[in-house]
Amino acid sequence: MIDYRSDNTGRAAPEILDALVRANRDTALGYGADEWTADLQRRFSDLFETAVRVFPVATGTAANALALASLGPSWGIVYCSELAHINTAEANAAGFFGGGIKLAAIGGKHGKIDAALLAEGLAGIAPGQLHKGQPTAVSLTQATDLGAVYSIDEIGNVAETAKRRGLRLHMDGARFANAVARLGCTPADATWRSGVDIMSFGATKNGGALCDAIVVFSPELTDGLAVQLRRAGQVWSKMRFASAQLIAYIENGLWLEMARASNGIAARIAAGLRDIPAARLLAPIEANEIFLELPDGAMDGLERDGFQFYRRSRTLARFVCRFDTTEAEADALIAALRRNLGTVPRAAE
Amino acid sequence: MIDYRSDNTGRAAPEILDALVRANRDTALGYGADEWTADLQRRFSDLFETAVRVFPVATGTAANALALASLGPSWGIVYCSELAHINTAEANAAGFFGGGIKLAAIGGKHGKIDAALLAEGLAGIAPGQLHKGQPTAVSLTQATDLGAVYSIDEIGNVAETAKRRGLRLHMDGARFANAVARLGCTPADATWRSGVDIMSFGATKNGGALCDAIVVFSPELTDGLAVQLRRAGQVWSKMRFASAQLIAYIENGLWLEMARASNGIAARIAAGLRDIPAARLLAPIEANEIFLELPDGAMDGLERDGFQFYRRSRTLARFVCRFDTTEAEADALIAALRRNLGTVPRAAE
Amino acid sequence: MIDYRSDNTGRAAPEILDALVRANRDTALGYGADEWTADLQRRFSDLFETAVRVFPVATGTAANALALASLGPSWGIVYCSELAHINTAEANAAGFFGGGIKLAAIGGKHGKIDAALLAEGLAGIAPGQLHKGQPTAVSLTQATDLGAVYSIDEIGNVAETAKRRGLRLHMDGARFANAVARLGCTPADATWRSGVDIMSFGATKNGGALCDAIVVFSPELTDGLAVQLRRAGQVWSKMRFASAQLIAYIENGLWLEMARASNGIAARIAAGLRDIPAARLLAPIEANEIFLELPDGAMDGLERDGFQFYRRSRTLARFVCRFDTTEAEADALIAALRRNLGTVPRAAE
Amino acid sequence: MIDYRSDNTGRAAPEILDALVRANRDTALGYGADEWTADLQRRFSDLFETAVRVFPVATGTAANALALASLGPSWGIVYCSELAHINTAEANAAGFFGGGIKLAAIGGKHGKIDAALLAEGLAGIAPGQLHKGQPTAVSLTQATDLGAVYSIDEIGNVAETAKRRGLRLHMDGARFANAVARLGCTPADATWRSGVDIMSFGATKNGGALCDAIVVFSPELTDGLAVQLRRAGQVWSKMRFASAQLIAYIENGLWLEMARASNGIAARIAAGLRDIPAARLLAPIEANEIFLELPDGAMDGLERDGFQFYRRSRTLARFVCRFDTTEAEADALIAALRRNLGTVPRAAE
Repeated sequence: MIDYRSDNTGRAAPEILDALVRANRDTALGYGADEWTADLQRRFSDLFETAVRVFPVATGTAANALALASLGPSWGIVYCSELAHINTAEANAAGFFGGGIKLAAIGGKHGKIDAALLAEGLAGIAPGQLHKGQPTAVSLTQATDLGAVYSIDEIGNVAETAKRRGLRLHMDGARFANAVARLGCTPADATWRSGVDIMSFGATKNGGALCDAIVVFSPELTDGLAVQLRRAGQVWSKMRFASAQLIAYIENGLWLEMARASNGIAARIAAGLRDIPAARLLAPIEANEIFLELPDGAMDGLERDGFQFYRRSRTLARFVCRFDTTEAEADALIAALRRNLGTVPRAAE
Repeated sequence: MIDYRSDNTGRAAPEILDALVRANRDTALGYGADEWTADLQRRFSDLFETAVRVFPVATGTAANALALASLGPSWGIVYCSELAHINTAEANAAGFFGGGIKLAAIGGKHGKIDAALLAEGLAGIAPGQLHKGQPTAVSLTQATDLGAVYSIDEIGNVAETAKRRGLRLHMDGARFANAVARLGCTPADATWRSGVDIMSFGATKNGGALCDAIVVFSPELTDGLAVQLRRAGQVWSKMRFASAQLIAYIENGLWLEMARASNGIAARIAAGLRDIPAARLLAPIEANEIFLELPDGAMDGLERDGFQFYRRSRTLARFVCRFDTTEAEADALIAALRRNLGTVPRAAE
Repeated sequence: MIDYRSDNTGRAAPEILDALVRANRDTALGYGADEWTADLQRRFSDLFETAVRVFPVATGTAANALALASLGPSWGIVYCSELAHINTAEANAAGFFGGGIKLAAIGGKHGKIDAALLAEGLAGIAPGQLHKGQPTAVSLTQATDLGAVYSIDEIGNVAETAKRRGLRLHMDGARFANAVARLGCTPADATWRSGVDIMSFGATKNGGALCDAIVVFSPELTDGLAVQLRRAGQVWSKMRFASAQLIAYIENGLWLEMARASNGIAARIAAGLRDIPAARLLAPIEANEIFLELPDGAMDGLERDGFQFYRRSRTLARFVCRFDTTEAEADALIAALRRNLGTVPRAAE
Repeated sequence: MIDYRSDNTGRAAPEILDALVRANRDTALGYGADEWTADLQRRFSDLFETAVRVFPVATGTAANALALASLGPSWGIVYCSELAHINTAEANAAGFFGGGIKLAAIGGKHGKIDAALLAEGLAGIAPGQLHKGQPTAVSLTQATDLGAVYSIDEIGNVAETAKRRGLRLHMDGARFANAVARLGCTPADATWRSGVDIMSFGATKNGGALCDAIVVFSPELTDGLAVQLRRAGQVWSKMRFASAQLIAYIENGLWLEMARASNGIAARIAAGLRDIPAARLLAPIEANEIFLELPDGAMDGLERDGFQFYRRSRTLARFVCRFDTTEAEADALIAALRRNLGTVPRAAE
């Protein structure tokens, strides 16, 4: 079987587990008052070229929901893409941790928020108007839930629209590494220099094991968030074992190296798809995910050929490349797609 | 420095980290649909001699708050000891995850709930009475927050009082291993056979690393809890790395071996205290914690001598033994206490 | 000025205020343990031809949010029309009181839920699937937010679809009187006989003053709801003054008489619109609301002519008839529409 | 029967219902955008000698819980008396509306918060300490739940202690009129001039009918509170009928006249108690409530004699005087107490 189901079905990078094991020495104060967690702050501040606060958390859902909860009051409205993971796949954690926060979907291409549509949505709620709640934040997903990547300009446009109204900006960076690898920019340019106040910094999907992180760029958010995390059961007493993982994740560029690997496999598959018109891409392949509209029956064929992937609908398949997906596995998928779809003419678009 | 600050300042058992590292092979479905998590269910069901459902979670706070949230409606009252960790040290996570659950403190000796006082508290709220909310659960902490251990009979008495009123019973087992090691009973006798519906099964304080667990004995609680955990960001996508830790924790009796070790060190210190009347015990030493009322200035002396511990007040010190605290460290503490307190006559009680 | 802004800008029926004043005698136990509230239970049970429990509440928002909160767990999904008041105009009270309940919008004509689209939405979430939360209820608005009225069959279809999946059915009856007046059916047929478990029984918009009500048809919902209402600050200590209003509201058919009056005025306007093609109806006029697409500038003209109404967009106007809107006021509106729109040819549809 | 059960069992002042009925004219914008509500702002600002914002709400529970929810984050700790209504009788509305706020009880005499004990409680939680949550507000009940009244100095002491730590101050003024009548001070001196940021302004217990109010002295609290009230279903669409009641309540000093009446009856009873040593007062009678420790069996006798009152325990009875309790009713109670207790010698204290 060749597994394209998700980037969370994969292994962790050995370097990350090694670091975890190496942290198992001596005693250390609990709840983050240890030397690894202090070091983590310095490492991420270096990485982002500014003083940031990093909070390791168990999952991306915790990172997203608690970051959003820190951004505004419980009667707030948070704008996101219709397809955003926070809106479709986190059991309304944002609404729960936010004490009643409402997510409002904004349209756009390829899982992105369109800045003009956001402006329109905001115009529909006058400041002080009571009946809908009040806009407080925007959350954009980088890379998007369709595998596309916001350009720096696109982030800036959304940020500017948000800031004009006094809204905060959150980035769900579950696949931030893939986005940065794609953009070839600095982490700083992709975040706070473009207006991001707080981010969910994903590691799990890109070779991590048991933690992601919240990275805070706007320091006034820190104190409240710290208590919310404690209350949420997201502050490990033996925090060093989480911090050590995150240090290893970014050390020597490991995170970007892994992201470039999975992006590269996806690009290799993308190149192979050019000759297969019956497999229609839902969005440009800019990170490590591939969403394909396939003819009826094609998915059955692929499964018979030994491929694992997610069926999003009767005709929509998702393939995800991991940091350790091999070129041979990519070529096998292309070959199988050719075998199964070769004679099907491409539908007019 | 000799560290008696907490059992969460310590290392993890190497067996647990080894198991985590060994789980880093192949691909595996996310969110608990993996073979390790399936195996975990079997192992714990064997351990508890009944079919249980085990949910790994990141922290004991998450275990407690989500277990309590699964037990009843948001307008519920949960009875616990005044000293219970859920009441004093978890930032009101129970109130938050429970959507407004109220904790009501019940008195008792040594951090226990007194069943008679519980009955009295319950009698003060008539069924259907609206103004206070409605009693829904009791949470008892085993071992208690003063280092004492409920006997099986004591658990049964609380359980019977609770059940007469239709209340559920939760056990905060952050130090369950220490309690079972002390009681010499089966895990089953200490929990569901005594009326416990759901428990927080602690591992972190007893040589664990990054996870504890919720163990469900009353199966009707499972489905709702599963969604609550997902929404709480407590379901790791790479769950295998958590489940592998918990399997190793109980494999070959490791958990009890570690608990016996830390209990044994505490008992060794207890024996040494008999000749030091100026150090007054707040509760019998039945697990791995020691709460000592000390004369003014004594704590300064101990710190100068290189001991680390928590000052609970000007005169109350807490010493916690870890699974890897050595007999030499115990003897050193006794010697230091003798040095510092030897000439101070014991206060009349 | 002639006021078509809302049915909540109007007066209360004198009968209702008279009853309130008449209740100002003797002493009476608080929080609903009074004779008026007991009588209210009997009167509504007679009206609905079954034993119901009636809870007076201050507002329709409270009625909706608390009714929904009583229907299922905090991780529930409640399906409603995209245009439902609970989704667009109650500051996410449902999400708040429900502890994180998520509203999911279902399409349909004229503000209704289409049963087939509901079935499709439900099919997208497998039972036990964790990532989205779990469907728990459907809320339909009768009359709808576009002034249309569900037929008994349409309610039954939605109910059947909901019940097949084990979902509860809530009816937002802010304009229930208008709907019943239109349908000419019994209140029982329009509610529990069609599968409704609980309803928000509106009075304010139809000549009430300071209260609406929750009516419970499924008695197992009552006990929990009672505590939730108390906690929500919706249980007046001098409840008799609320209950007396609601008794007067339904006594001698006053509620239906008033609804027939406002419906009648709307129908009179509808008849007048037939000759004014430039005023395009968004939905059939089946209750007391009229939504008109008007040519640019037409609203300015109407305002200059002394009419008050809501501008929903640059070209969409809402006119609402109250129980005391007069035929002369209706005729004046028709005349003004003719004056302002007479020469504008109707757009092709 | 003579009713001493509560001040909420009583009638409303006719002036208040008259005003409600007089407001039933013309049309008026909904949700508080009417002339009565505008007038209400002016009247209360005059009364309090500063610009205040008044929000009518349905109940004192709503006033308390929403005022507290406006004062700080959901992880806050609110200090109150052990006996405070918010802590004992509102179904944890504060915890619910506050999204997990925790109430922490502070001791003191006669239902008051002792400023020194408050300072001690605050000293136990270091700023930034995560495990308990963070102190955010103090709520004092004026008059207290034992019928005592804080002096201006006592309020100031609590306020100063709170402000030193940056905490906000809430006053639960369910019986504020009784307290002001007792103190003979201005409403301003009893509130914002003594450090109160926001108050629950009770009317119901003192001759009101269907509304109380939140009065905001610190204007930065207003905007958030306005949305919270809307979301809480506490903003009547026909707000004029509530605002008119509150205007009438304070017009021409009606509120203080009624409070002086009920206080006067309580004082008359207090005078009568001097000769009845077997009836032991739990607190000085400074408002309209009387808490009496009575010998076993005495309450049965009083009930046989036709008196209604609340049994707080086997030996503790509460008698509440209403604005329309008569001197004859007071004298009858004194006579009955003499009859029932006359020969019982007073217990040593």
